[in-house]
This record gives sequence, structure tokens and C-alpha cells, in this order.
Amino acid sequence: MLVTLCGGVGAARMLSGLVRVVPPHSITAIVNVGDDTVLHGLHISPDLDTITYTLAGMDNRETGWGVVGETWTVMDELARLGGESWFRLGDRDLATHLFRTERLRAGDSLSEVTASIAARRGIDVRLLPVTDDSVRTMLTLAEKTELGDPGTEVSFQDYFVRLHHDVRVTAVRFAGAERARPTRAVTDALASAGRIVVCPSNPIVSIGPLLAVPGVRDTLVARRDDIIAVSPIVAGSALKGPADHLMAELGTEPSVVGVARLYAPWVGTLVIDDADRALAGQVEAEGLRCVVVPTVMDSPDRAAALARVVIDTGD
Amino acid sequence: MLVTLCGGVGAARMLSGLVRVVPPHSITAIVNVGDDTVLHGLHISPDLDTITYTLAGMDNRETGWGVVGETWTVMDELARLGGESWFRLGDRDLATHLFRTERLRAGDSLSEVTASIAARRGIDVRLLPVTDDSVRTMLTLAEKTELGDPGTEVSFQDYFVRLHHDVRVTAVRFAGAERARPTRAVTDALASAGRIVVCPSNPIVSIGPLLAVPGVRDTLVARRDDIIAVSPIVAGSALKGPADHLMAELGTEPSVVGVARLYAPWVGTLVIDDADRALAGQVEAEGLRCVVVPTVMDSPDRAAALARVVIDTGD
Repeated sequence: MLVTLCGGVGAARMLSGLVRVVPPHSITAIVNVGDDTVLHGLHISPDLDTITYTLAGMDNRETGWGVVGETWTVMDELARLGGESWFRLGDRDLATHLFRTERLRAGDSLSEVTASIAARRGIDVRLLPVTDDSVRTMLTLAEKTELGDPGTEVSFQDYFVRLHHDVRVTAVRFAGAERARPTRAVTDALASAGRIVVCPSNPIVSIGPLLAVPGVRDTLVARRDDIIAVSPIVAGSALKGPADHLMAELGTEPSVVGVARLYAPWVGTLVIDDADRALAGQVEAEGLRCVVVPTVMDSPDRAAALARVVIDTGD
Repeated sequence: MLVTLCGGVGAARMLSGLVRVVPPHSITAIVNVGDDTVLHGLHISPDLDTITYTLAGMDNRETGWGVVGETWTVMDELARLGGESWFRLGDRDLATHLFRTERLRAGDSLSEVTASIAARRGIDVRLLPVTDDSVRTMLTLAEKTELGDPGTEVSFQDYFVRLHHDVRVTAVRFAGAERARPTRAVTDALASAGRIVVCPSNPIVSIGPLLAVPGVRDTLVARRDDIIAVSPIVAGSALKGPADHLMAELGTEPSVVGVARLYAPWVGTLVIDDADRALAGQVEAEGLRCVVVPTVMDSPDRAAALARVVIDTGD
């Protein structure tokens, strides 16, 4: 049994590689919910949706979010009404949010709803939100923005979408995490996994919220030798999103060495890109084994090749 | 200043006639909210929307609900997910519900949101929900249905849409009405109106919830001489919806005489259709003046002609 720790796009690509090299039903994906938000009364789970759409072959590879061939009738009309349309919700995507919201209102857990959606989408990978409780990633801004003066704390989607993550940050916290509990399925999966793969997701705002749920980090520390992470930083930059400058702003060098430092307490092996070969020694100096391979998943074949590496390394 | 008491389709047609014979800005429409519901987390106000779409020229005259030329991308996808799709929400219609829900969540009142939507749709008639509080029409079913045994109480939309109002009822109540307050705008409009027109809406489940809001009925009783109602019953049948059999099930004869009996305490004049000419004497025996004209608004011209009658009668 393989367990993956997941954010959004990078994790979705990693999983789309993994399902080509191991049976999908042998994979359990534990997914960040810190990006979740409620908009227009609808519960939106961006990371779960990105992974679901990708594994269902519905993902829009050009944008990295949403559904391919999407239409925008609702959003266009909402804009006509003067509604909030900065968070673009496509018509088919909206159906997911309506479904989730209705089920949650009826008393089902996010785990149950996620399983239903995955089943309907024909996905055999087991998708588990890390918790059924509310965890919300909040960022304190260093600069004045349309949302307020320096020091204003905003939600992840305000930061990521509304402000295009084009603003410096002084702090990140995971609101509600201290009261959240990992689901039983998550706890069991982490305990019984043969291998745990940390997908190339943002260490701070994608993997960070997973670790913030009480019990998860301790479990991972105990499983350190079986944990292999893929660096989301290549040649000092994030392939997508704000991981690089977020790391710098929060005091960690935006490099594979910085990733190694963040992960060292609970990750045994770090996979870095060929571009960072010269830093392999510094990664190992942080106490991690280091594997150097091509990590950029710009095609399904390359995703599968990387998947084979994370499966085979150390076996 | 003209005030109308409104349910959905019949009221929308009456208003579309009235705006052809008096300046739209001189009309205030007080609208039922007992049909309102929350589905998929979205606040839906069917009567307000039917009136808005009709006055904006967006209404689908074939179905009597929703938006003309509507698309169904979201609902089709929701059905694919196995979601609740018995209440058909078109894509453009959904934008209204997203807008309303977001604004209500932000703390605006239903009155404020309704005014914003009307302004965006270019509507000069003043649309007022009778209350900003929650009033929900609930019906007790006489028969076993997919929703439960005889005696089960269901919401209006469960009755009207899900069960196609094809089931007998033993009771109707307006949950929350006893704690609701009419808005100040409603109270002022009722007090200052030169004339009050009761649209040809369902007396029980469209006009009934208006009367159930404390203070409204007393105000109407005091204005009785200035109130003119159009019968929604023609030749013993409702033109649309379950008004006829609901009246019968709840102990009122489904005829213009039954309507007269229900309205006699607070309506001075009842407009009935030519088809019911023979019953005019019985209507008058209930203590109402009776006007006999064509009332079926099957064209804009006929709606305008009826509007002229309700404006001119008694002047």
C-alpha cells in the first residue's frame, strides 16, 4: 500500500504518474484541505478537485485548474449581476460544489462526499481529506493590498487567486488545525503504508496544513525511513505557485536545500531535479538520502518515470 | 402609488400588464417568500425570481418558470454525479442564487439583495419581499409518497416540484411566520397605497404567507375598501398550479365564491372571469363588489386590459 501526501497540481501530476506504474487501488492520497473555502454558500475543495479532475482525465492542463472544455455561463451571468466573480467557477466545476455542499448540509462528512465523487468519476485511487474538520490556511500580508493594510490576515484563496499570490507574507497559520483530528482512515493509512510519498507540492501551504493536524506529524516522524519526498523547488524556483517566495519570506532558503531542512525531521529521502545535482551534497548534509533524476512532469511519460523512481528507490 | 400582493406566475403576468398602463416606478410589489428554500447551500426565492425574470423580459413563457434560452450544464453534470437534480436550476438562473446567497452571507437583507438584482435587471417596479425573516410554507400530506407516510410534513418545493403537487394535503402552515416581521417598506407601502391589487395568485400558499406575517392582515383589513383582487380560479379551476384542489382539500369550495369567502374580511372588490358570470351574485352575497371581465392573461394585450380594469374600477 502506497500513501501520498498531496496538495493540488503537483500532486495530481505525481498521482497521474503513479497510477501508470502501480495499481490505482493500491494508492491512498491524503489531501490538503487548508485551501478549502466557502463562496456563494458553496463548499469548495480546490486540492481534492484538482486531483479528482486530473485522475478522471477531466483536467485543464493549460490552466492547471478546473475542467477541460469548461463553459462559463454561470460566472458570466454572475458578473452581469455585479457578483463576486474573481474566483472563476466553471459550469461543470460548479456541479461538484453543489453536490458537495448539499451532501455536507445533509450531514455527510467531507471524506464520504469525496469518496462518492471519486466513485462517480471512476477513480480507483483512494482520496482522503486529511481531516473532516475545518482547517483554513490564513496568511498575514506584509504589504498594503486591496484587502487591507500590512498585517491583514487573509484566507488562502484571497491570497492565491484574488491577489494572484503577488504579495509578500509575514506569517502563515492553519486556523482550526489545533482542534482538528485526522480521520481514522488517514491515521490507519499512515500507519500501514509500505511507502509514503510526499508529492511535489508547496511545503508551506500544501504539506504544512497536513502536518498541522494533531498526530500527523508525529506519525510521519515515526515513519521517516519509509518517506520519500519530491522537491517542488527546481533550480531555486517553484514550477507553479508561490512556494519559492513564500519559503524565502518565512525564512527558509528557496532551494532543494531549504526543502531538505523543512522536511528533515520526518522525510528520509528527497528526490531533486538534475538541475540541482550540485546541491545533492548539501541535501545529504541535512540528514536525508538524496536522489537526483528528472522531476519535471511535463508529460505523462515523465510523470510515470518519476513515479517509478519514487516507487523503486531503496527497494 | 399602487401596491400589489404577489405570488409567482400569475402575479408576474399581472405586473407585466400593470407596467403597460401605469408608470412602473409607481408600483410596489409585495412578494411571497414562503416558497423560498435552500438547495445545495443556495438561497432560492422562486416567486421573486419569477417576477424579476418576467419584468426583465427574461422569462420562459413556455414553462412558466426559469429563464428563456436557458442552458443546463450545471444540472446535467450534477445528475452525472448523482446529485439532487429534481429542482431544475438553469445556468443563468443559478447565477441569481449564487449572487443572493453570497450577499445574504455577507449580512445583507433579502430586501437589499432583491433591490440590487432588480436594479441590475433594469426593473423599475419596486420589489419587496414581505419580510426579511424566514417564513416557510409547510404542507401536511394526506397520502403516502416517496417522502413518507400520510401525515408527513414537507416543504413547499418538495410538494410543488418534487411531488408535482399531485398529492392531497390536510394542512398548510407557515413556519416562522409568527416570529417574522414585515419590513418597514412593506408596512409603509400598505399604509400609503392608493390602491392594493391582489394578483391572481394561489390564495392559500401564495397570498396566505403574506397574511401570516404579523400585522399584514390587520393592515389589509383596515384598507379593505381600497383592495381589489383578481380571482386565480376560473370556472372552478386554477389556470396553473394546485390552488383548486388545495382549496378543496382545506375546506373551501374551489370557485370564485370560495375565493370570495377567503378574501371577504379584507378585500373590497373581486374581479372574476366572464366564465364565472353566473356566480357574480354569490360573490356579492359574500360582501364583495364583483367585477366580471376576461381575466385570462394569455397575451400581453390581455394582461394590459386586465390591468386597466383593476386600475380603473371604482375610480
